[in-house]
Parts: sequence; structure tokens; C-alpha cells
Amino acid sequence: MVQRATPYVPGKQIDGVDILKLNTNENPYPPSPKVIDAIETEMKASLQLYPSPTVDSLRETVGELYDLSADHVFVGNGSDEVLAFSFMAFFEHGEEIVFPKITYSFYEVYATLFDVPYKLVELERDFTIPVEQLFQAEGGVIFPNPNAPTSLYMTLDSVREVIEQNPNKVVIVDEAYVDFADKSAVSLINDYDNLLVIQTTSKSRALAGLRVGFALGQPHLIDALVRIKDSMNSYTIDRLALVGAKAAIKDVYYTRKRVDQIIETRKWAQEKLREMGFCVLPSQTNFLFAEHYSYDGAILQEKLQEMNVLIRHFNVPPIENYLRITIGTDEQMTQFFEKLQQAMDQM
Amino acid sequence: MVQRATPYVPGKQIDGVDILKLNTNENPYPPSPKVIDAIETEMKASLQLYPSPTVDSLRETVGELYDLSADHVFVGNGSDEVLAFSFMAFFEHGEEIVFPKITYSFYEVYATLFDVPYKLVELERDFTIPVEQLFQAEGGVIFPNPNAPTSLYMTLDSVREVIEQNPNKVVIVDEAYVDFADKSAVSLINDYDNLLVIQTTSKSRALAGLRVGFALGQPHLIDALVRIKDSMNSYTIDRLALVGAKAAIKDVYYTRKRVDQIIETRKWAQEKLREMGFCVLPSQTNFLFAEHYSYDGAILQEKLQEMNVLIRHFNVPPIENYLRITIGTDEQMTQFFEKLQQAMDQM
Repeated sequence: MVQRATPYVPGKQIDGVDILKLNTNENPYPPSPKVIDAIETEMKASLQLYPSPTVDSLRETVGELYDLSADHVFVGNGSDEVLAFSFMAFFEHGEEIVFPKITYSFYEVYATLFDVPYKLVELERDFTIPVEQLFQAEGGVIFPNPNAPTSLYMTLDSVREVIEQNPNKVVIVDEAYVDFADKSAVSLINDYDNLLVIQTTSKSRALAGLRVGFALGQPHLIDALVRIKDSMNSYTIDRLALVGAKAAIKDVYYTRKRVDQIIETRKWAQEKLREMGFCVLPSQTNFLFAEHYSYDGAILQEKLQEMNVLIRHFNVPPIENYLRITIGTDEQMTQFFEKLQQAMDQM
Repeated sequence: MVQRATPYVPGKQIDGVDILKLNTNENPYPPSPKVIDAIETEMKASLQLYPSPTVDSLRETVGELYDLSADHVFVGNGSDEVLAFSFMAFFEHGEEIVFPKITYSFYEVYATLFDVPYKLVELERDFTIPVEQLFQAEGGVIFPNPNAPTSLYMTLDSVREVIEQNPNKVVIVDEAYVDFADKSAVSLINDYDNLLVIQTTSKSRALAGLRVGFALGQPHLIDALVRIKDSMNSYTIDRLALVGAKAAIKDVYYTRKRVDQIIETRKWAQEKLREMGFCVLPSQTNFLFAEHYSYDGAILQEKLQEMNVLIRHFNVPPIENYLRITIGTDEQMTQFFEKLQQAMDQM
């Protein structure tokens, strides 16, 4: 398999004091204080003992978010692991799956690694996904909602259409950013046995450092994921990640407060970018996707990097002039706009 | 792939106060206090930020153990993940790999999942591995040293022979228990470009709850593992596991002290079992593998379980009468022998 592997390249991960890091869509706020309390207690208990291989208590906690039982929930080491296991469980050699051409670039990596053929769907000129092109897929469908890096949300009516137009094939909706958007497709799970929704604790719950993602769907889909996991690694979630994720997911009030703050910051940051002459897509995520009408995106990103400001740029048409900017705190965004103006002034 | 998946079944993981848990070869002692200090500091830093995707500092720390550079080290989410990635990286469809029939049962699970044909080598009557049967493998070789669940160690001269008799094929030596044994094969890495050694922090370093395993080998082997990992999951090691594992690996003195204590306990526990009429294999691990000449192993295990004493029994010939007993503290072993005597008295 190693010959086929063409790895995904994540955004730079630099821990530095003077760096303004708006390149990997992390939450600018710390996690709930209850997370720290839970870890503090657990670390003094029994680190020498294996964690639970079935993580039932965490599955229950995730289920309670959406009024589903634990057998509707799978948990993995970050949503990337959940995605990889989903490719292994649901997509077959020889049956073509479908996903947008501009999307989370890990999908292509998984398809290549597991030898699953795929068709890429071109986005519309406004960067929305042409829904009908996701219909009647031979092997299944996967797409993020909201999409990344476009930040655009697909309505639940459209998601429902995609599910209905792919009977007997699994439709995976990757909702990493959904807490910053309108509505989750989890509400459709009881209606459709071919829907798998994947979420994460890395964004809205500020736990990117702990690596816990999860999938929700009807029990037969969850069982298939469990079989793959139990054939790869008995214990994927360590004791501290388990209790930390549980505490974060249970603290719904804290998550809501921080998400609302990020959405507030997003509103004015979007306006500010527009005032500076950027075209900004209407984001339903914790990042903005924007291009300037007269400044080159790649050069802007480089100039900002020289000033220790990290944002993301993808050198792929038709988004090669766009910049992806994570929403930071109000202070961070104010600092960002100062640096952005400086970069533009130099050009 | 899910149709092929026939999951591994780990030993029961029960967190209970009154249970004497000698069934999953955990360390009976807590990890180094430096582990707790490191986690305490890190958890208050930046859990909202992704961890390092390359975990270079941890790779350096592991390398220093054996005077190797970081590019000789791969780190994964427990040694099971390292093993799974190794099957993906080094073993091909259609080329038969070889491993002992009685061994860590996850190897057969991986081979089945990734569609790698395999030949099982029968153990000798004394349960040692017939070394020459591991020669000239078509697709590669994997075996634990010491072997599990037999607890028997293969000399480095024999390991060297296996490596030399499989030129151009990868030989994986799974050293989960090596810190309780004579010598690691890591010393052979500079001599052979087809040797991969896999170790863990779960046993000698008392960190089963944190999930960190590692592989050592020449850089071209490590690069192949990195490519698989980067095609599956960018961030497999969370921030707390990273600092915890580093602290544990660096505290060589603490690990040595605890390992020596476990070896001391093993000595008298082995003698005690023999006095009670058991045949005990000469263990170089943190567990004992033993059968009684006149008591049935399966029934003994059941009776002990009724008394809240967990040990492991594998219902597979020729080891169906054997019991695998993890070495606990002196107090735990004293308690174990009391219960074992009670169980035998009832039969």
C-alpha cells in the first residue's frame, strides 16, 4: 500500500509566542475548565491500566447531545481516523465514489490509499456544490457540510435529496464545522439507514490537542466501523482524551458561548475584509474564505508569513487566489487586519 | 474491507476496586511522577491547538534510548497502530508472510484485514519457535520477542539468523515485553536494513492508559511508516500523550527500578506456582504462562473469575490448559496465590 500512499499535508503547526496562527482553523479560546478538572483527576488514577476498548461512556455522552443511544455513536482518534475507517468500512474497490473537487483534500488521499475509484464534482461558479451531481453514485458519497475550504453550507433539504438519491449506498456528511453553521444532518439519522454524520471535538469544543472525533448513524453502520477499529487497534482513545472529550461535550453552555463569540467576530471580520476590497464567501464555519480583486493571494500569504502571520493558501484552480483565514479572538483579528494592511501597502 | 474484518478480542477491561486484575499484562505500579508533572503543565497550555503532526521531539527522545537519531524512529497510537501501519507498509497482497501459530493473535487479524496470505509456524514441543521455519519467507516475517503468550525469549543470535535468511524482506520483531528480557534487537538495526523493531510504553513504562508505541529501524523503513500514517491521520499522538510518553521514556532510572521489582516478584511467583504443581515456562516477560498437571486450566480461570480474580486463558490447542498470569505487586501475587489455592481446593 505504501506505493499508493500520497500523504495529506496539514497546515504548519508551530508553537511560538510571537506567531499569529490563523492557518489550521483551531479555536482561539481554551477548552472548558471542566476538561482540565476531568484530566487532572484521571491522570492521578490509573494511567498504567488500558483504557476502555469500547469507550461506552463517551459514546453515551455523544449520543445524549442528539437524543440518540450509544449504539448510534462511533468514536475515533480524531475525525481523520473516523474518516479513514469509514473509507475502509463503506467504500469498495471498483465502485466509484463521488465528492467535490474542491473539498477536504484528505478524501482523495484515502481513496488512493484504499484503492477506491472516485469522481470529482466541479463546484458551481459561486463555489456551491451542484447537488444533483452527487446523485446515483456507484459506490457512495462524501462531502463536508459546511464545505472546506469554501466555508459554504448546504441546506438540509439538499442533504436529504443527496441521501434519497443514493439508496443502498452510504452518504457521509463530514460536519467538522457544523456548530458554526445552521443545522446538523444528525436529525435525519432516524429517517435514513444510509447516512453517516462525522463530527469532531477539535473545532467548536477547542480540543484539537486531544484528538477525539465521532460518527453518528444507525447501529448497522456503527457496527461496521467498530469491526474495522477492532481489527486495527483495540484502544484508540487514551484515558485522558476520553475524560477530556466527555467533559467538553457535556459542557454545552460553554461551547455555545464560545461558538457565539466566534460567530460575532466572524461577522465584523467579514465586513472588514469586504471594506478592504476582498470578495468574502458567506461563511458558516470558524474561518473566512476570501480573495482580493487586485492583490495576488499567494503573495499576500507569503508577505504575511514573513510578518509571523500564518493563514492558508491552496495553489489549486479555481481557488488559487483565495485565502483561508481562521477566526481568532477580536484582538487577534484586529492585529491580523493591521498586518494585512501593511502587506497590501507593500505591494 | 469490513467483510474481511475478524476483530481481535482484548482481555476484559474493568475498573473495579475489588478486582484483582492480572489479565492484560499491565504494570502494577503507577508511571513515573515526572509523567504526571509533564501532563499537568501541558494540559494548561494549549489543548485548543493541534499537536505536532511529526512528533519530532518524542522521536528524538525514543532515539536517545538506543543512540539512534529521530529519523530511525516512528511513533504511533499504541504499538497496535504501529503494527497495523507496518502490515500496510511492508506486507503485500499475494506474498505469503510467516509468523508463529501461537503468538499475538492480532497478527492474523491484520493479515486478514489487509488481505495478506500467511503461513503459521507450529511451535516446538517446548513452545520455542523453530527458527529455521522463519527463513526464506516469501513476503516477510513477524514475531514477538519474547513471544506472547508463551513468555519465551529467542536469543539475539537466532534473531540475527532470521534477519539474514530473509534478505530484501522486512523482519518485524515485536518487543512489547523486551524490557523484562535479556537484550533488544535494536542493537542490530545498524547492521540490517530489513529489520524493524516495535516497542511500547504500555508495559515497562506503565502507560497503557496513554497509548504510545514506537518502531525503530533504518530511515527508509521509517519513511514508509510515515507515509502510511500521513495518509491515514495527520495527528495520531495527542498533546498529553506526547509529553507523558517523553517524560516516561526519559526517566530511565524509574523504569529500571520498577522493572527490576517486577522481575523479583516474577522469580518467587514462578517458584510458588511450581510448588503448587504447575509447569511454568521460563518467563522473560511481566507475565507467567503455566499449566497444572492435574487441574483443568479453563475451569481454574472460571473459578478465579467468580472470586473477582482475572487472568487470561486461550482455548486453542496446544495451549488450552495453560493460564497467562500478569505479574502484579508482591501483595497482589500473595492474594492471587491464596485465591488460586481456594479454587484448587474446590475442585
